[in-house]
Amino acid sequence: MTIPITPTQPTGHEQAVEAARGVAAVLAKDALERDRANAEPEAEAQLLRDAGLPGLLLPADVGGGGLGWATALRVVREIAVADGSIAQLLGYHYVNVANLWWVAGDGGLARWGRASAAGQWLWGDAVNPVDPDLDLLPDGTGYRLSGRKSFATGVSTGDASVVAGAVRGTGEPLLVVVPRGAEGLRPGGDWDNLGQRLSASGSVTFTDVTIAPDQVLGSLAPDGATPRSSLVTPAIQAVFGNFYLGIAQGALATAREYTRTISRPWLLSDSRSATADPYVLATYGRLVAATRAVQALADEVGEHLDRADAAGAGLTWEARGELAEHIAALKAVATDVALDVTGTVFEVTGARATSNAVGLDRFWRNVRTHTLHDPVAYKRREVGDHFLNGTHPPFTLYT
Amino acid sequence: MTIPITPTQPTGHEQAVEAARGVAAVLAKDALERDRANAEPEAEAQLLRDAGLPGLLLPADVGGGGLGWATALRVVREIAVADGSIAQLLGYHYVNVANLWWVAGDGGLARWGRASAAGQWLWGDAVNPVDPDLDLLPDGTGYRLSGRKSFATGVSTGDASVVAGAVRGTGEPLLVVVPRGAEGLRPGGDWDNLGQRLSASGSVTFTDVTIAPDQVLGSLAPDGATPRSSLVTPAIQAVFGNFYLGIAQGALATAREYTRTISRPWLLSDSRSATADPYVLATYGRLVAATRAVQALADEVGEHLDRADAAGAGLTWEARGELAEHIAALKAVATDVALDVTGTVFEVTGARATSNAVGLDRFWRNVRTHTLHDPVAYKRREVGDHFLNGTHPPFTLYT
Amino acid sequence: MTIPITPTQPTGHEQAVEAARGVAAVLAKDALERDRANAEPEAEAQLLRDAGLPGLLLPADVGGGGLGWATALRVVREIAVADGSIAQLLGYHYVNVANLWWVAGDGGLARWGRASAAGQWLWGDAVNPVDPDLDLLPDGTGYRLSGRKSFATGVSTGDASVVAGAVRGTGEPLLVVVPRGAEGLRPGGDWDNLGQRLSASGSVTFTDVTIAPDQVLGSLAPDGATPRSSLVTPAIQAVFGNFYLGIAQGALATAREYTRTISRPWLLSDSRSATADPYVLATYGRLVAATRAVQALADEVGEHLDRADAAGAGLTWEARGELAEHIAALKAVATDVALDVTGTVFEVTGARATSNAVGLDRFWRNVRTHTLHDPVAYKRREVGDHFLNGTHPPFTLYT
Amino acid sequence: MTIPITPTQPTGHEQAVEAARGVAAVLAKDALERDRANAEPEAEAQLLRDAGLPGLLLPADVGGGGLGWATALRVVREIAVADGSIAQLLGYHYVNVANLWWVAGDGGLARWGRASAAGQWLWGDAVNPVDPDLDLLPDGTGYRLSGRKSFATGVSTGDASVVAGAVRGTGEPLLVVVPRGAEGLRPGGDWDNLGQRLSASGSVTFTDVTIAPDQVLGSLAPDGATPRSSLVTPAIQAVFGNFYLGIAQGALATAREYTRTISRPWLLSDSRSATADPYVLATYGRLVAATRAVQALADEVGEHLDRADAAGAGLTWEARGELAEHIAALKAVATDVALDVTGTVFEVTGARATSNAVGLDRFWRNVRTHTLHDPVAYKRREVGDHFLNGTHPPFTLYT
Repeated sequence: MTIPITPTQPTGHEQAVEAARGVAAVLAKDALERDRANAEPEAEAQLLRDAGLPGLLLPADVGGGGLGWATALRVVREIAVADGSIAQLLGYHYVNVANLWWVAGDGGLARWGRASAAGQWLWGDAVNPVDPDLDLLPDGTGYRLSGRKSFATGVSTGDASVVAGAVRGTGEPLLVVVPRGAEGLRPGGDWDNLGQRLSASGSVTFTDVTIAPDQVLGSLAPDGATPRSSLVTPAIQAVFGNFYLGIAQGALATAREYTRTISRPWLLSDSRSATADPYVLATYGRLVAATRAVQALADEVGEHLDRADAAGAGLTWEARGELAEHIAALKAVATDVALDVTGTVFEVTGARATSNAVGLDRFWRNVRTHTLHDPVAYKRREVGDHFLNGTHPPFTLYT
Repeated sequence: MTIPITPTQPTGHEQAVEAARGVAAVLAKDALERDRANAEPEAEAQLLRDAGLPGLLLPADVGGGGLGWATALRVVREIAVADGSIAQLLGYHYVNVANLWWVAGDGGLARWGRASAAGQWLWGDAVNPVDPDLDLLPDGTGYRLSGRKSFATGVSTGDASVVAGAVRGTGEPLLVVVPRGAEGLRPGGDWDNLGQRLSASGSVTFTDVTIAPDQVLGSLAPDGATPRSSLVTPAIQAVFGNFYLGIAQGALATAREYTRTISRPWLLSDSRSATADPYVLATYGRLVAATRAVQALADEVGEHLDRADAAGAGLTWEARGELAEHIAALKAVATDVALDVTGTVFEVTGARATSNAVGLDRFWRNVRTHTLHDPVAYKRREVGDHFLNGTHPPFTLYT
Repeated sequence: MTIPITPTQPTGHEQAVEAARGVAAVLAKDALERDRANAEPEAEAQLLRDAGLPGLLLPADVGGGGLGWATALRVVREIAVADGSIAQLLGYHYVNVANLWWVAGDGGLARWGRASAAGQWLWGDAVNPVDPDLDLLPDGTGYRLSGRKSFATGVSTGDASVVAGAVRGTGEPLLVVVPRGAEGLRPGGDWDNLGQRLSASGSVTFTDVTIAPDQVLGSLAPDGATPRSSLVTPAIQAVFGNFYLGIAQGALATAREYTRTISRPWLLSDSRSATADPYVLATYGRLVAATRAVQALADEVGEHLDRADAAGAGLTWEARGELAEHIAALKAVATDVALDVTGTVFEVTGARATSNAVGLDRFWRNVRTHTLHDPVAYKRREVGDHFLNGTHPPFTLYT
Repeated sequence: MTIPITPTQPTGHEQAVEAARGVAAVLAKDALERDRANAEPEAEAQLLRDAGLPGLLLPADVGGGGLGWATALRVVREIAVADGSIAQLLGYHYVNVANLWWVAGDGGLARWGRASAAGQWLWGDAVNPVDPDLDLLPDGTGYRLSGRKSFATGVSTGDASVVAGAVRGTGEPLLVVVPRGAEGLRPGGDWDNLGQRLSASGSVTFTDVTIAPDQVLGSLAPDGATPRSSLVTPAIQAVFGNFYLGIAQGALATAREYTRTISRPWLLSDSRSATADPYVLATYGRLVAATRAVQALADEVGEHLDRADAAGAGLTWEARGELAEHIAALKAVATDVALDVTGTVFEVTGARATSNAVGLDRFWRNVRTHTLHDPVAYKRREVGDHFLNGTHPPFTLYT
């Protein structure tokens, strides 16, 4: 039996990028209003599904798009131009769905791939290692999952989630699947932060959630990790770099529209329009040049992750380490540039663009919020340690 | 007859600074909630009056505090540590009240000084030259004032305002007084911007407001300007520099409290507490060092403005020009440092400080909004032109 | 008749990069001593010839390597890691030799290509438009060339040079070829600048130098320019971006060797070695991440220039303009990053690395000197104007 | 008996500043040539003596100028505008001479003060704790001093030096006086570094130098230190901040002269002169504004050090700590600004200013070299630790 590809499932890179741009155009229309409303991104998630974006990384033989990470990351970036939150939701999803095969191998794909592709499932996660571990109480052949995670992107909106817990007694860290609406699963709906407001990143509580044996994807224990099973960290960091970049590009595009149509030349300027002011021009130029460099690096990283993913079980620790450092560099420089761009665009639009009716601050809020996910100083240290000492950090959910 | 000094009127520098700190302590308690509510700052204005802060620049012989600009600016800075908006309201007031004697001389003080001191009046203004001129229609010995200003700080909350209009026919620019509640005066209540949300900076409409002859303070015509009558620009720019500085200091103090009491050490850090993390410490150090330099310059500027004010009618254009450049330098460097500090403090508190319950973004929002008042690139150009070519820019409301 | 390829002529990308690395390894050995000596780079030029690098852009059918700009730029970058001056010499050469066909078409190649390939000629130039024009006095069917250029890279060392002059009377700007040793050609030997000291960039004087008709490559008149004939500017700017990048990479590699082998941990550091110091690591990381982004952009630019070159006479102004902006962005961001890297590396090596025996400053000197070739502020303005207004600047030797 | 004040001994602040400016004017004439020659600064030292600058900190009752640190630091800054090396020489001298009374109390002054004032002695030092300790071998009632210091500012040129050694056996650290020309004292003459080339900072070797009991100033043991005896560190760091500032001011003044008289407007600029270019003006403005802030902080620090010095034996550890943090902030921000200014001035002068005949790089070389004395990251950490945790670091020769 072959799974019929849904009519909207993009199966080529350009087609996927076009689909993403279509979604972005819709999201852009009321991005500010939705940001204010801070509601669950249900409609936004449906837009993603309707465009066939959630399925694009899944192999064609389970009905997915069969596309690679270069495409997935580019799609995340395109969405971020319009809406950083939804880009985060989708980007995390790609990492979560890839964990089906990275952690669980072909079995994971066999068990969850077809339904996921057919339904264009969005996958959330609750794996944040900063909180105490969730408890997996052995129960028959499975477990009962209990505990709370303070931040859990996409669990509330996703069709299923990957969740990290520790087996009571042994402490073994396992990654398990929890479908939407599972009994005992209760999202907190309490994400009210400065930025990334629609990323469905609030807390989630698990109370005796039943985990059947086929819901167990595998172990996250560092000593059992393989280069492939630990791709989660470079992949999620690559997602970050891409949506920071997309947000910066969105800020520049939004500012450009404002400068062109609304900004007035400064009283003391010799220029007859804001679009001819020497300082406005040079500031745009500085920001655009820096953004283009990040864009080139992000494109390079996408191809690198593609190659690493394609290596499958043959991926070496050395190759995984080089990939991680490439991506860490992207994360570090994307952070610097996106903060600079989103904070500075006000200087090329002028004072009236601080009106809340304009909402030009949402780009900065999104970048400022998410770039704190893990401290950029430690990401710089990691890049520096690799350059200076040739080290690859041990696998953690941050390295 | 001597005007009795109200019991709370500070008459010494230290006393005034203490009073300001007392007000700041009250304002700090609910600064975030008030920022969200975006209401008219009526209660806040009353706090200022109760502390005797509005009267401190007025001469003792009309019942004021008889204090100078070094004190007034320092008071603005102290208020800004807690609440940038209210610091703006008070800082603009000081410039507006000084215009009574800078523009109108002893007559201005005679007509408005005693009531102002006795009532601890707050003065607003509608002088922004970016909008079209307000119209002063000659009417008997006075005028009828009509028109609209998009931004007018303190008019809605102030007890009186200084307003710039152009006489119909001759075009002569006049500065006139409009008391609160004057018939035909209608504040728009429409200031809903990113920052400085309680600064009462919305639009105001004037419809046939009667201006009696004694409400005319004098001409703002550049060719009639004297060094003293044109102190309005350096003074207001000095106010800006001081409240940017105070906001930066407030951001650092707020972040410090958070880091000390809530922040956790990073997972990959060797430090057992966030307060010992090498990157947290060095980042605080970099920001504090830069802020201290601005603080020293602001103190220097306060004394310089004091000397210029004390020179009275003897102030030369040369001396006024040197003052203006000193202050322009403060404005430029305070802008750079305050943006850096308020944007970076998140990196020393960590991701959880992006919760809207914390509201750490209000410092950045305040600085980002107001530093666009006039483009910092042009202020840098002014400083550079003076350094390189020895120029002093002609008097405008921005130079 | 086919021209035999010299044994050392690289004809593949990887082979050329390897050859460049071989030359760089030799140049690195005494880069500092040669920098100090400030001699004519005769031996260095010969190294380039021996490795077959000058011929690689020439078509295979005249005996060249038949390689493209992506390779040429990468070769320039590799040389710059060791020696920025020689990278400049070679990079300028590539643009000069390409002018044979960009400006003169197949005829230029026919007249000069075979000798150039066979002899691995290095081409210099005297085209700097900042100086007054050189004078081309009509003389029979040719001209006599006279005048002086203050800066003329590679004329003294090159086997031939392209020289811009204006025809007396008509003022028409022509590009002509002057072979080494031509009578009346006198290099000044007067380049004694802060950086790029071996780039043979001193003045040159022409006194009645005979220009035969076949030495005339064509007109540089803006109104006669075609997209292809005006590729000189984007190409030279791409060369700049690549050697700035290579110099930054060289600074990082040199610093790394020093930190690893000589630097000691700071007295007040908890780390037992400089290579474990948290600030040293994070600083390396910040610089490396920024450099990688520039590197990715430079690689992208190389491929873009390849495509534009391959389009030949079919290149449109629109395509030429997009290329120019891509390259302008590289130039701008490479400038910023290379200055930052080369100035900051001292902070990861420590005070003893300021010894002149170490010479770590040569990287900064090279970047600081050449990045002033044309002001980066105007390059930023150009990028900004394109982004904001969609403009492509008119062709000049700087845009 | 009163010591006659030498005719040139300044005894007032303004007089001293004037004297310093006079010396600076002489030094400026051939600063570049002297920098190149890298000779011992004998003539320069004599200029300082002739102007009465070395004696100004010594009390009037031993024949000194009786002036304070605010004056001494300002004099250092004025000299640095012309010549950073000589400013370093003089600044270190002030700290060394103050050690006579800070470490040895009235006895130190009694023994060395009169000769020092009468002869306008310059004091060098060899106290750098990075090298292994010098050996003080007990010998009768005194010692024999042996060993080597890699860096020892002013020992070769000074009339006497303070030298730190450790008593053999007990390890007690002592500060002793070694007069110029003492038998067994051999300066290495080996300071050939990037910057501060005339600061006489080379190595020095001691071979059985006789130290009589009255040459012992006292103990440097941390547990015996008093707030006063440990002022050496804040004082030397204040000296650093002042000469970094002076060098930045010198760079700006030198660039200004160049821009005004030599720079040409950029080809693509609308301005008819470089002095009207919008980017040139704004860049000067940015640098000047930042420099003025450092200047204000340096003035504040001078007064603070004056107060601490005046407190004498009554100085508390708390007051010493607050002083140290004030000065650490100056050191940190002066480093940042001086590096920025001295590296950026080339952008306001243009490419021709990279000629070695201009020598505009000497300012950057001086700042880049000396700011590595102790890593600025650790100075930032110290400032941050004080701000965040209220700590005062234990006394070391760096804190």
